[in-house]
Amino acid sequence: MRLLFLGDVVGRPGRAVVAERLPALRERWSLDLVVINGENAAGGFGITEAIYEDLLAAGCDAVTLGNHSFDQREALVFIERAERLIRPVNFPKGTPGRGAALVEARNGARVLVVNVMGQVFMAPALDDPFRAVEAELAACPLGEGADAVIVDFHAEATSEKQGFGHFADGRASLVVGTHTHTPTSDHRILPGGTAYMSDAGMCGDYDSVLGMKKDEPVHRFLRKLPSGRFEPAEGEGTLSGIAVELDGRGLATRVAPVRIGGCLSEARPEFWEI
Amino acid sequence: MRLLFLGDVVGRPGRAVVAERLPALRERWSLDLVVINGENAAGGFGITEAIYEDLLAAGCDAVTLGNHSFDQREALVFIERAERLIRPVNFPKGTPGRGAALVEARNGARVLVVNVMGQVFMAPALDDPFRAVEAELAACPLGEGADAVIVDFHAEATSEKQGFGHFADGRASLVVGTHTHTPTSDHRILPGGTAYMSDAGMCGDYDSVLGMKKDEPVHRFLRKLPSGRFEPAEGEGTLSGIAVELDGRGLATRVAPVRIGGCLSEARPEFWEI
Amino acid sequence: MRLLFLGDVVGRPGRAVVAERLPALRERWSLDLVVINGENAAGGFGITEAIYEDLLAAGCDAVTLGNHSFDQREALVFIERAERLIRPVNFPKGTPGRGAALVEARNGARVLVVNVMGQVFMAPALDDPFRAVEAELAACPLGEGADAVIVDFHAEATSEKQGFGHFADGRASLVVGTHTHTPTSDHRILPGGTAYMSDAGMCGDYDSVLGMKKDEPVHRFLRKLPSGRFEPAEGEGTLSGIAVELDGRGLATRVAPVRIGGCLSEARPEFWEI
Amino acid sequence: MRLLFLGDVVGRPGRAVVAERLPALRERWSLDLVVINGENAAGGFGITEAIYEDLLAAGCDAVTLGNHSFDQREALVFIERAERLIRPVNFPKGTPGRGAALVEARNGARVLVVNVMGQVFMAPALDDPFRAVEAELAACPLGEGADAVIVDFHAEATSEKQGFGHFADGRASLVVGTHTHTPTSDHRILPGGTAYMSDAGMCGDYDSVLGMKKDEPVHRFLRKLPSGRFEPAEGEGTLSGIAVELDGRGLATRVAPVRIGGCLSEARPEFWEI
Ligand SMILES: [Fe+2]
Ligand SMILES: [Fe+2]
Ligand SMILES: [Fe+2]
Ligand SMILES: [Fe+2]
Ligand SMILES: [Fe+2]
Ligand SMILES: [Fe+2]
Ligand SMILES: [Fe+2]
Ligand SMILES: [Fe+2]
Repeated sequence: MRLLFLGDVVGRPGRAVVAERLPALRERWSLDLVVINGENAAGGFGITEAIYEDLLAAGCDAVTLGNHSFDQREALVFIERAERLIRPVNFPKGTPGRGAALVEARNGARVLVVNVMGQVFMAPALDDPFRAVEAELAACPLGEGADAVIVDFHAEATSEKQGFGHFADGRASLVVGTHTHTPTSDHRILPGGTAYMSDAGMCGDYDSVLGMKKDEPVHRFLRKLPSGRFEPAEGEGTLSGIAVELDGRGLATRVAPVRIGGCLSEARPEFWEI
Repeated sequence: MRLLFLGDVVGRPGRAVVAERLPALRERWSLDLVVINGENAAGGFGITEAIYEDLLAAGCDAVTLGNHSFDQREALVFIERAERLIRPVNFPKGTPGRGAALVEARNGARVLVVNVMGQVFMAPALDDPFRAVEAELAACPLGEGADAVIVDFHAEATSEKQGFGHFADGRASLVVGTHTHTPTSDHRILPGGTAYMSDAGMCGDYDSVLGMKKDEPVHRFLRKLPSGRFEPAEGEGTLSGIAVELDGRGLATRVAPVRIGGCLSEARPEFWEI
Repeated sequence: MRLLFLGDVVGRPGRAVVAERLPALRERWSLDLVVINGENAAGGFGITEAIYEDLLAAGCDAVTLGNHSFDQREALVFIERAERLIRPVNFPKGTPGRGAALVEARNGARVLVVNVMGQVFMAPALDDPFRAVEAELAACPLGEGADAVIVDFHAEATSEKQGFGHFADGRASLVVGTHTHTPTSDHRILPGGTAYMSDAGMCGDYDSVLGMKKDEPVHRFLRKLPSGRFEPAEGEGTLSGIAVELDGRGLATRVAPVRIGGCLSEARPEFWEI
Repeated sequence: MRLLFLGDVVGRPGRAVVAERLPALRERWSLDLVVINGENAAGGFGITEAIYEDLLAAGCDAVTLGNHSFDQREALVFIERAERLIRPVNFPKGTPGRGAALVEARNGARVLVVNVMGQVFMAPALDDPFRAVEAELAACPLGEGADAVIVDFHAEATSEKQGFGHFADGRASLVVGTHTHTPTSDHRILPGGTAYMSDAGMCGDYDSVLGMKKDEPVHRFLRKLPSGRFEPAEGEGTLSGIAVELDGRGLATRVAPVRIGGCLSEARPEFWEI
């Protein structure tokens, strides 16, 4: 079974590289499931229903979110009918939408997709992500309720992400971080069989600061005051994420980074390119 | 001119992989200068004089630090005589040691090495890193006082690191982040000619949490209380960092990640391997 | 019904002023219940069983805690048998001890005492304090299971404390903050009848930094490095807290600050002094 | 010499209580100098030129600021001509306005007024406040360049404020905190003669969260999401601050809290009321 997870889509360059590249990659790599983090898809802040549907149309099976989940206020409404839009599971009870969803892959497998937000250096302050995900894993365990489990751990600190990876090792198919908008190269299979990568990076223009035009963030670091708004950079986007192959138990057998387009060095899963 | 920068050495596995691998790599790759971040070399916390000298003996030309600079109290004393040990330049005036040093490379080039600590999510709270480095660059500009300039930007947030990279673009040979202990794969040459990588990763055992044994950090995330001390993991270490080739002006012409040994996927600068 | 709540006891000066002053005040003011925050009673860090018992012997009916609850590791054990020692209710399930207790006052009233930790600027990161306390209030409501309810909201930010005060207004007899070690003068009765004070201050030596000797904290602010340990100041302590009179429904009819001894201006509840 | 310092003016209730009360108090108490923190005067966020002038017209001699200094963008411009408007001195070089000003009191005395922002839990991250103020004190020392020195230390953490108080003790007439919008009752004269109070409180409606209507902040604590904007509360404001009497050397001889109007307990300097 073949999974592709793509990191935070940032603005138009991110949406464009997904729309242009993903359909062909689905075919070429015979992907069974594609999950993408869409929290910055709408102008860098949140997601609209139209963009959500565009991401599905481009070949995504599920869209995860993060601290920017509801920056576009319409998301508080349409998320209720968007069955494959998943916001952090540790938002308070009563928050619109869902924190986990069982999605059917192309090969018929049932894949549990969970989104969760870390606590270290993150706002808003949500409840313990470890226990929140553990409850989802208990309700729908790998190998029983789910044929595969993907956890998007949306967090700043590498310590919390790595700690969670080990905590979930053997109980998830993939634990992948998002939020820093910077891909890490620590992709690997943990001892218990869980594929892991501290951050999937972003789908966006890397000649930027986190996908946003450079001038305003640099101004703020220097002047300690805003001079204007943050706006997405406009150069060519990079598709960034992680490719994972699973065995029949839903554990990882191969893992590789994906970086296609834009100004980062290219990376493809060689084991699917042949 | 050929540079190698290696990320935070964590405990014995980090020191061991440096001692075992670096001497041969210096030869094989004809390195002109090697810089390493040593802030976690002594049991995960700080550095001792003996370890500093071991790192030099293994082939490092300069050792940078970070928030853990003085965890070993002896560093407050020996740093004064350790001419190639460099702590963050934005520590207050009067702090022992130096924040920048002009180091002679094997090829005779004068290389300015600067260490600085970010402000976002970092403790202690130091003065503005952008202006602190700018003062060093003004005092010893690339192409005038220095033939090459390396800035180790020790920080948590990718936004601050990327913002600084663009700020220094064209005025440094290499801006490389440290502190997250996780290598990023956004290594590239910025438009102005500065080699950039958000984090060099660590030299240590990656089957861990930031190089430390997993149990204690996972316990703290779950229980919100310590149960013991943090101790370095004991598995095989990975050498992690970035390789950069410079032109006669001190700007980058090639850049590649380095990951050798341990449980991460291997990466070598192909352009030097031939 | 007459309540006295006293803020964080810091070290020997804090314990001494409690031991010397409280017994007489209990008599003089005919107090029905005394609650004290003891998180810094043992050398500034945590609490021991001997100190807990001394506080009870001096006339305290319950002892609350905070982020320093378990700085003395023995507290993880003895808290299980210390029925009137109350740690933050929003520590994870499985944490030793209790987050709320029903204590019998001298007049026979049943008083629910709850301790909770805020999330803003606080470590460790605990679950939502508002919902955690709400669950306790639902299980033992004022006027039903409890004749009075005292919430010690242990937190840094005045916004969170005030927000909680309004949230609980009419459902608690007293919401009082602790943790900043500095008494506020915003004591009042909220519109719904809950007595409120953003911080009770500390029982300790105010010629200090938060009850600790001045030199080390000032050194750290200036040097950004430790030079030694934090140790409690040794001057005369001030007893600091809030006096509340309740009506038959458990709502507040009078409130006054208490500051006795040491270097702060004296304050006493005049309505009990006559 | 008689000083009055008033804390953060929040919105219309804050401006109203100043306009209504201050002119009479200036007379009644024969005040020589009045300083007020105006960072929240304009709808809770920043200050306009019209409001600045209204504050002067009401009897303020200088207006200090804080993290909200430039929330109203016009402040970046008019601050240059507003000679008695003082923003934190540790903003970067090149920031419009000034961080200290020598103001003439009614009795002819020259009073150095300094505003500075703390580093703990504060954004933006500014340079070391201790050294920034020390430079001002060195340039215009108490008893030489200045007959009195007032430092408004705008900060969250009581530790940093108290640490600074001791650091400046004997070198300032008054060190008073602002920013928490909650008055403390730790007003006193430090051993070296400096009047000190951790926070002056706000001039605003205390039936609120920090002067803002309660509903939105409580919603955010519960839901972890905004539901609307923060708006100043509209009830009666309280004038809150500290009264200080100085001797001929500019050191404090008497100190008292001031709380007049609104829902806090009243406090007046008895030594001036006779
Ligand atoms: Fe994002
Ligand atoms: Fe995010
Ligand atoms: Fe490190
Ligand atoms: Fe570090
Ligand atoms: Fe405390
Ligand atoms: Fe505390
Ligand atoms: Fe304010
Ligand atoms: Fe403020």
